[in-house]
Amino acid sequence: MTIDRKTLRWNGWGPADYTDPLAGNIPAWEWMCEVLGLERLPSTPAKDLGEIQLPPSRLTGQPLTDLQNAIGADHVRLDPYERAFHARGKSYVDLLALRAGNLAMVPDAVVYPGNPLQVFETLRFADTHGFKVIPFGGGSSVVGGVNAVAPADATGILTLDLTRMNRVLTVDEEALTAVVETGIYGPALEEALNKRGFTLGHFPQSFEYSTLGGWIAARGAGQQSNRYGKPEDWVVGAKLASPAGLWATECFPASAAGPSLTDLVIGSEGRLGILTEATIRIHPIPEARDYRGFLFRSFAEGAAAVRALAQSDLPIAMTRLSDADETHFLRAFSSLGRNKDPEAVGFLERGLLSMRKFPDRPCLLLVGIEGDKATVQWARERSRQTLTKHACISLGTKPGERWYERRFATPYARDPMLDRGLGVDTLETATRWSNLMHLYTQVRTAIKEAMAETMPSKGARGLVLAHVSHSYADGASLYFTYVFPRNRDNEREQWKTIKTAASEAIVEHGGTISHHHGVGTDHAKWMMEEKGPAGMGVLKAVRHVLDPHGVMNPSKLLPD
Amino acid sequence: MTIDRKTLRWNGWGPADYTDPLAGNIPAWEWMCEVLGLERLPSTPAKDLGEIQLPPSRLTGQPLTDLQNAIGADHVRLDPYERAFHARGKSYVDLLALRAGNLAMVPDAVVYPGNPLQVFETLRFADTHGFKVIPFGGGSSVVGGVNAVAPADATGILTLDLTRMNRVLTVDEEALTAVVETGIYGPALEEALNKRGFTLGHFPQSFEYSTLGGWIAARGAGQQSNRYGKPEDWVVGAKLASPAGLWATECFPASAAGPSLTDLVIGSEGRLGILTEATIRIHPIPEARDYRGFLFRSFAEGAAAVRALAQSDLPIAMTRLSDADETHFLRAFSSLGRNKDPEAVGFLERGLLSMRKFPDRPCLLLVGIEGDKATVQWARERSRQTLTKHACISLGTKPGERWYERRFATPYARDPMLDRGLGVDTLETATRWSNLMHLYTQVRTAIKEAMAETMPSKGARGLVLAHVSHSYADGASLYFTYVFPRNRDNEREQWKTIKTAASEAIVEHGGTISHHHGVGTDHAKWMMEEKGPAGMGVLKAVRHVLDPHGVMNPSKLLPD
Repeated sequence: MTIDRKTLRWNGWGPADYTDPLAGNIPAWEWMCEVLGLERLPSTPAKDLGEIQLPPSRLTGQPLTDLQNAIGADHVRLDPYERAFHARGKSYVDLLALRAGNLAMVPDAVVYPGNPLQVFETLRFADTHGFKVIPFGGGSSVVGGVNAVAPADATGILTLDLTRMNRVLTVDEEALTAVVETGIYGPALEEALNKRGFTLGHFPQSFEYSTLGGWIAARGAGQQSNRYGKPEDWVVGAKLASPAGLWATECFPASAAGPSLTDLVIGSEGRLGILTEATIRIHPIPEARDYRGFLFRSFAEGAAAVRALAQSDLPIAMTRLSDADETHFLRAFSSLGRNKDPEAVGFLERGLLSMRKFPDRPCLLLVGIEGDKATVQWARERSRQTLTKHACISLGTKPGERWYERRFATPYARDPMLDRGLGVDTLETATRWSNLMHLYTQVRTAIKEAMAETMPSKGARGLVLAHVSHSYADGASLYFTYVFPRNRDNEREQWKTIKTAASEAIVEHGGTISHHHGVGTDHAKWMMEEKGPAGMGVLKAVRHVLDPHGVMNPSKLLPD
Repeated sequence: MTIDRKTLRWNGWGPADYTDPLAGNIPAWEWMCEVLGLERLPSTPAKDLGEIQLPPSRLTGQPLTDLQNAIGADHVRLDPYERAFHARGKSYVDLLALRAGNLAMVPDAVVYPGNPLQVFETLRFADTHGFKVIPFGGGSSVVGGVNAVAPADATGILTLDLTRMNRVLTVDEEALTAVVETGIYGPALEEALNKRGFTLGHFPQSFEYSTLGGWIAARGAGQQSNRYGKPEDWVVGAKLASPAGLWATECFPASAAGPSLTDLVIGSEGRLGILTEATIRIHPIPEARDYRGFLFRSFAEGAAAVRALAQSDLPIAMTRLSDADETHFLRAFSSLGRNKDPEAVGFLERGLLSMRKFPDRPCLLLVGIEGDKATVQWARERSRQTLTKHACISLGTKPGERWYERRFATPYARDPMLDRGLGVDTLETATRWSNLMHLYTQVRTAIKEAMAETMPSKGARGLVLAHVSHSYADGASLYFTYVFPRNRDNEREQWKTIKTAASEAIVEHGGTISHHHGVGTDHAKWMMEEKGPAGMGVLKAVRHVLDPHGVMNPSKLLPD
């Protein structure tokens, strides 16, 4: 495997030996107490794996021997670390369970196939013996997409870890495509492409610990999706294994030979087949990058500016607009421990804001442009012209560069927060521009109200931060982060109350239930609202023809 | 209906009373004789509808009355003109049959529903009574997509003409989307959008006589697809009726809630449902347009330049590169009847070509740019810089403007050619850049050889013209036009020989069987090569769940 699982946290983010600087930052925690209306933060450490008893593996005897013979004894793992590491993804509720030592749900074995045929053999083995198979790349799902769940009558659960299948097979420098095995991690993929002068340009926040196959299976978005697209834009064709056999989808620049089945497997979350290989569109490494910040009076005014950019012909790579609370929170948070009042705004800045009749809490927009030098220069000039038509204050490149440097850092902050009795979760949706502010208000209110309902003590309160993370000609996504004191008597119920309130507000007010996190187990309940009865019938029919006995990834995407 | 069918040719292109100027252009025909190695062109007029006996309609008695009651008596048409008009599309082999008076295949009735519920009612009626239903928009299919075919045991055939459903329902000026009924013709759609300052920008060659629903169902491409995209780019969501009920696909700017079912219905050719409504992405009418021509030494050098443009960040609207024979033919053809030798190249031009060491038969590239003035200017400058890195001669805007003016004219030329014993057919494919020249050579050779095999007389020969019509970052399409003397003893067999040879070469050498004409009946045979057994299983399973008794558009897209 590319990254030895033992070097990674089985119940958190990143390397096992990593300590986030936040952990020891006393002023940060004091300020958080204040913001969340708490007197102090409790200590809520995670249980050690050594303290936890795993259920015995149900893969034993002759079946175990057979599988070992097929895949290689070294590649069928039954040890507690492997089973625990693969028990769940990295959602807030996953971490709650793992940290509490709740390992009732674990795979009976972890299989590391070395090639598509071994993937198929594992599926056939599972089909014969009544096991369920859960595909696993980086395991970074935040919606329960890789969780070891199976119906009660299943013989057991095999998690199929694809990270041994991690080669860049070919690069076509003329067509700007590459054929890549799906188990490759983000950094390894970029390194291999970079060596030849190329990039995929897909950088989700989970980039360091997620894989190509996971990106495609969950239909995710990278931070620079304006320029590099989502998988539906950059996957040319895919190869999959399902119990019905191996199959390859069409692989053309464009075709009118019926519906695109490549599009059908993007977002299929291991329910229609296990992705083994993909042909992806790549780009020359951009010659130049320009990331800069602008302040807006309000989220609505900022969104209007983002819309103007998204509807222009400008080759923008990223727009990211934080609402007033997120702008304030991130700024305060990043100044903590630097011996100053986190709430303080510099004298000059305050003067400027007041002179321009901006509120004390403006909204920060980051605009990123990438490409050849001339294009970046042109787009920078033109985007500046567009933005200045909307009242804004230019902050230069510093906020952009700071964001760029720390663009994969946020997930690391969660573990120290979980160590201190705090809850933190995120969700996202997307809608058309004409509905964006309405949806924002409704979802934000729903989260706030549900948090208020579930506070552990009087005076305690949660925090909702939001940003527009991805923009399109016809609409944009909304990304919500919410931080709250945990109700430790009923943590899971608290999560569920907030999640349900947010999901219902999304569905009721015209948002998609997932813009880039996928469906997993957590959103499956709302799929009927999104796809309708006919759509659900279609998905089930496709699943049935490829996987008649329901071996693959039960309960994900579609109710069983 | 929007266009009274009586005002249109039932067996040809365009208005019934239209005469193409080519028809009376004697020098053109003399030159064609020479080019095709013929002594003279025979007269092969089409039969009048009055001379042709149609099979009696099988929609009679109580079922007819029931359907009339459901849809309105005026909207269930049984007269010969309506039935003949809806018998077939506009492929070469369709026209051969229609012109010969072969109306063995005709619908028993033509139903004009006024709303989605009536579409559903017609499907339910058909399902109950054993009729098959063929959806029909403009009827411009060149692959048998609307042909009245049905298994022998069917009660009969109803063609469902959607052109009464032709309203632009809403325009969202903020999200730049419109909700439109699918039976609207191209010009009516553009007129309605233009009035509000917008355009869809989808201009296939059939634009004047094709509909929104047909464009989506066949997954076609407009001439300016670099800028405006194919339906998979511009359809946000769709509504359909199938025997299983009415359904609406997702309608979001982007979603990660499972596979996109909107993508699944694009290219579904009436097999998975009948499109009744679509939400489409629109654009402000471009402020400026710049179309200009460039000459290249060879098709390969021209293609390398097109690739450079397609892989740049430039907002190009169109690139269209003709091979040497097409460049020569179109130029000669357009000079005919202007009292000069069509083969003559002007003195100055010959001098320039020779000075630059260009061959006598260079290749013409047209580059179209659309957008706001500043962007068009920027893209023109930058594309000129890119193109001059590839040896080319700039011809200025004249060839571009001439092409733009005549961009919908070519289909009209077919009827006069068919009147004179000539055959003319087109086909297209797409592949990755690294395979483009190989595929071009193979398909061109296959067509040439198959034509040579089927010549009606000694010395007679066919002509193959080709161009790159649509370009993408990873590849491009190839569009072939072939003109040949008909073998009047065996016209259909001759067509089939050429078509089969071309299709086999496409499939063998890595092309898609259709880049923008769709599949219909004519390409269905090669779908297994394109989709594989698993893919075909998926499509059949989806069809079965939506249309259990196989009511919709039999034999199209998938073998029955």
